[in-house]
Amino acid sequence: MTIAIQGLGKMGMQIAEKLLLDNHQVITYDLNKELLDQSVKIGAIGALNKEQLVRSFNQNKVIIWLMIPAEFVENEIREWLTILPTNSLIIDGGNSNFNFTVKSSQLIEKAGSQMLDIGTSGGIHGFANGFSMMVGTNSKDSFNLIEPILKTLAAPTGGYKYFGRAGSGHFVKMVHNAIEYGMMESLAEGYNLLKNGPYKELNLADAADVWQHHSVITSWLNELCADILKANPELDGIDGYVSESGEAKWSLQMASELNIPLPAIQAAFDVRVKSQSGQINFATKLLAAMRNSFGGHNINKQS
Amino acid sequence: MTIAIQGLGKMGMQIAEKLLLDNHQVITYDLNKELLDQSVKIGAIGALNKEQLVRSFNQNKVIIWLMIPAEFVENEIREWLTILPTNSLIIDGGNSNFNFTVKSSQLIEKAGSQMLDIGTSGGIHGFANGFSMMVGTNSKDSFNLIEPILKTLAAPTGGYKYFGRAGSGHFVKMVHNAIEYGMMESLAEGYNLLKNGPYKELNLADAADVWQHHSVITSWLNELCADILKANPELDGIDGYVSESGEAKWSLQMASELNIPLPAIQAAFDVRVKSQSGQINFATKLLAAMRNSFGGHNINKQS
Repeated sequence: MTIAIQGLGKMGMQIAEKLLLDNHQVITYDLNKELLDQSVKIGAIGALNKEQLVRSFNQNKVIIWLMIPAEFVENEIREWLTILPTNSLIIDGGNSNFNFTVKSSQLIEKAGSQMLDIGTSGGIHGFANGFSMMVGTNSKDSFNLIEPILKTLAAPTGGYKYFGRAGSGHFVKMVHNAIEYGMMESLAEGYNLLKNGPYKELNLADAADVWQHHSVITSWLNELCADILKANPELDGIDGYVSESGEAKWSLQMASELNIPLPAIQAAFDVRVKSQSGQINFATKLLAAMRNSFGGHNINKQS
Repeated sequence: MTIAIQGLGKMGMQIAEKLLLDNHQVITYDLNKELLDQSVKIGAIGALNKEQLVRSFNQNKVIIWLMIPAEFVENEIREWLTILPTNSLIIDGGNSNFNFTVKSSQLIEKAGSQMLDIGTSGGIHGFANGFSMMVGTNSKDSFNLIEPILKTLAAPTGGYKYFGRAGSGHFVKMVHNAIEYGMMESLAEGYNLLKNGPYKELNLADAADVWQHHSVITSWLNELCADILKANPELDGIDGYVSESGEAKWSLQMASELNIPLPAIQAAFDVRVKSQSGQINFATKLLAAMRNSFGGHNINKQS
């Protein structure tokens, strides 16, 4: 089918390429001309502005996937709504707060179009593995409409799911990321203990490797730890500042309002915040290295 | 090769059977006559007492694998040392504290024999998958000697590793279990948040399932959550008391002495302790269900 993508960062470009490889028609839009050209080289139709994108679509409705930072979503939606034909479909594929998504959805529906929120996990490995995709929308028809796109992008078989009304996709993704914080922190604490315990000769990569063979903690994050610790056992060159990108904080705020205890996730969040003011150690270095491994996040940037 | 196993609980019996299926000769010993008979039925040579076991071994050295609760290990080792020929080998395959293992090793070496400590993970699924096995010993020769046994029992290929001097196997297993506490708690907190958040219609098993498709938190523990939540979405019939079996507490004590921060693991530990005095919720029920799934632990027993 035909779909437009705005935002050709790491994730947006991967999504465009994966769709093109499966013979979908992709119209791309990004203010960064270099990224736009790159997308054209792999087969997309590049649009230089919103109006051109709508014309290129050449259908009575436009389907546009926003893969842009959360802080730009509201403004972009407002701009799109001024030029989109009614019955169009806007997908927010980024990490927006689900409460904001509920409002975006109302705004879009009021203008006569529909919205989907899709939380996406899998990071920079999603191109090879397929993504894990969490979908919410008030319009189940819209979900059905774009299912061919989801089939192309998601991990086979079962890598996408519809969770319910607007915001539910972003809500499930938010909780996923909160769990991610806790799991990463648990691993980082354990490896720090291994390293600084009484057995100084211990090979940490060996521990990671044997744990990856059907132990209870076998996991993708531990697999990444095995690779990291094998390549760089002392985590040389990693500062150990770990940024937090919103979802865990939103989870903690919501949990606090609802009186839901999240002590391990809170601990993981606090460690990241403290790392920003210099409380760094082997554990926070490993956290930074894990983020870099799965998400391509800058390993040393303090933001 | 020939090996004796004392202790035919869930893990001991599985180990005996797995060895027998791979054509090792297994001599079993357990005070529980029923379990002993069961082992004989699957091909083991049952010994009614320690002396008979040593005679059955019919070699100038005995290799005996203890798969018994940690609190019985010291006494059993002392008893064995009174009748074993010198140059025998005692394996502690349970969850002993590594500090205790260092002392056991000294005791055994003083009597002219050798010791291995093997931490084993994989629970009741280890029979099918192979185990994840962490080995320590002061005698690398002893490790080499029993490697055929490890090859049979461990997950292919690479499911066992030698980590260094006496106690290192139990130390690595202790840290594994501490990480396990933190990872389980992170998942349990997340599912509790999903359940009690604003999207009451959310299907938790669907979330678990989509997360198991190449999301960042893909893990064996999450796979167990998917199975649990599919079969019993409300976790009916689960009290939600979660016991703690030592390793996380030992990790926390050691970390405290060495000034190593373990805040997420501490939080996970505290939740279990509080569950014992009645602070139970959907999260602690899920913890109990996970323990039951991977370890066959009684789902409701408050111990």
